[in-house]
Amino acid sequence: MLLIAFYIAIAAEAMTAALAAGRRNMDWFGVCLIACVTALGGGTMRDVFLDHYPLVWVANPYLLLLVCGAALATIPLARLVDRLKWPFLLLDALGLVVFTIIGCNVGIDAGVHPIIVIVAGMVTGTVGGILRDVLCNDIPLIFQGELYATVSMVTGVIYFLGIHGGIQADLIAIIAAAVGFSLRVAALLFKWEMPRFVFDRQMRK
Amino acid sequence: MLLIAFYIAIAAEAMTAALAAGRRNMDWFGVCLIACVTALGGGTMRDVFLDHYPLVWVANPYLLLLVCGAALATIPLARLVDRLKWPFLLLDALGLVVFTIIGCNVGIDAGVHPIIVIVAGMVTGTVGGILRDVLCNDIPLIFQGELYATVSMVTGVIYFLGIHGGIQADLIAIIAAAVGFSLRVAALLFKWEMPRFVFDRQMRK
Amino acid sequence: MLLIAFYIAIAAEAMTAALAAGRRNMDWFGVCLIACVTALGGGTMRDVFLDHYPLVWVANPYLLLLVCGAALATIPLARLVDRLKWPFLLLDALGLVVFTIIGCNVGIDAGVHPIIVIVAGMVTGTVGGILRDVLCNDIPLIFQGELYATVSMVTGVIYFLGIHGGIQADLIAIIAAAVGFSLRVAALLFKWEMPRFVFDRQMRK
Repeated sequence: MLLIAFYIAIAAEAMTAALAAGRRNMDWFGVCLIACVTALGGGTMRDVFLDHYPLVWVANPYLLLLVCGAALATIPLARLVDRLKWPFLLLDALGLVVFTIIGCNVGIDAGVHPIIVIVAGMVTGTVGGILRDVLCNDIPLIFQGELYATVSMVTGVIYFLGIHGGIQADLIAIIAAAVGFSLRVAALLFKWEMPRFVFDRQMRK
Repeated sequence: MLLIAFYIAIAAEAMTAALAAGRRNMDWFGVCLIACVTALGGGTMRDVFLDHYPLVWVANPYLLLLVCGAALATIPLARLVDRLKWPFLLLDALGLVVFTIIGCNVGIDAGVHPIIVIVAGMVTGTVGGILRDVLCNDIPLIFQGELYATVSMVTGVIYFLGIHGGIQADLIAIIAAAVGFSLRVAALLFKWEMPRFVFDRQMRK
Repeated sequence: MLLIAFYIAIAAEAMTAALAAGRRNMDWFGVCLIACVTALGGGTMRDVFLDHYPLVWVANPYLLLLVCGAALATIPLARLVDRLKWPFLLLDALGLVVFTIIGCNVGIDAGVHPIIVIVAGMVTGTVGGILRDVLCNDIPLIFQGELYATVSMVTGVIYFLGIHGGIQADLIAIIAAAVGFSLRVAALLFKWEMPRFVFDRQMRK
């Protein structure tokens, strides 16, 4: 079930990334590359940090075809996908919690410190979007106050504590995903935001 | 012969990267670093993805001296190098196909899936230029419609199919390089472009 | 002693990075992430290049807490930290030489070529600041003429030659750090700059 959610989330990430590329008038290759980086970049960076080889998409190259296919399919469907704002926000929230849980699992299997397990989940959930914004030459959206990384952290902590406490993996995955998903949706609905650090004085290091 | 073409292409990449750095008024260290990232970044990223150690420039550090030497030599010669636009476009096209074939060879030796062999070639051929543009704070040029990644993909597919079909490696390398090189030059001459995905509506994920 | 200097430098890097994030009005998560990338990014990239696992912060996750704690503590103290410009420039110079020496040590232990030992030191000392500027969507400050990477190179060369010449590691570390630190402070005081490569003609590769 986690696997099905994973594939759906990957495809949804690819489609929203393709829209971001389209807004910058990129060519079809750029669209595919932005989609791959967004959908697979977080897991790739996690695996490089943890020396966890082969990478997911090297072991399963059909993922690349899924991502590029979803991205290219977005081109003729752009107006439709754009109008489906809420379904995609929900799919994106699903992706965030699913990626986080998968990342935590990799960390747990690697036997790293609990802090690193949570970080592995957060990297998996959030780095793809950061890399997308860097390639599109924006200051990453995720730093602008949205409750996104926090959702990933909460999901990861619940999941890790559950596993650590001996709860069955499937059950705690569903609980952690449900809490994280609800928190993200609530943040979107009620416009909850992270506090910002606003500092204006001119000083360069 | 592939090796000689590799060294020429590395030096040419370093020189065009140095010009890009000069256009942003970078200091000499910045010039060297942009040159190293452009000339060696693609191979480095491929090796990190495939867990293929040691990296090329760690095993052969004189490559770094070649790259920095070529980059610094560009400074007094900038007006000349700038005027030699076509020779450098040809050297760049040569580099693209040579890097691609070398990348495919690494993938084949690592025994990965054919899709990943092609991707290894494309990463080797194109990532250096993407990293250069990110460090120079541009939207990567390669996403703006130039037939560049496509050339890399075509070269890689021809080379892989040839190797797979039992053709002698040297022969198929020359054939793949000739086709890729011709395609790139034709694209430059006739201004062939990738179609773009232009999407204007305001929506942020 | 190197270890104590390392912790102080890490915390100082985190605090100046937090100010950079605050100047871009990032949220608290962004502040922590920019701090982690700046303080730990150089060492992480060095370890990935040299296949040196586990990464420092994976082996010692409390480093992440130190960095995030220092970054968040900067928020209420921003005006104070900003006014302490010179102490932080000195701490930053200390960090530069300490990171460089630690990076050289990793290279020496890995048995790589002397050139790569120096490069390992330079990557450790300078990449964090480059990544910070890329994430903040600036052209990296380090390319704008400051004598920064040069200081790292000089420190690394002195340290490596000393170790190679059989001088006791602690002694040569202190000498290399003192020379590098003095050079950096002199460069700040007397506004020594790297020459720039200024090139204005329009040409795109």
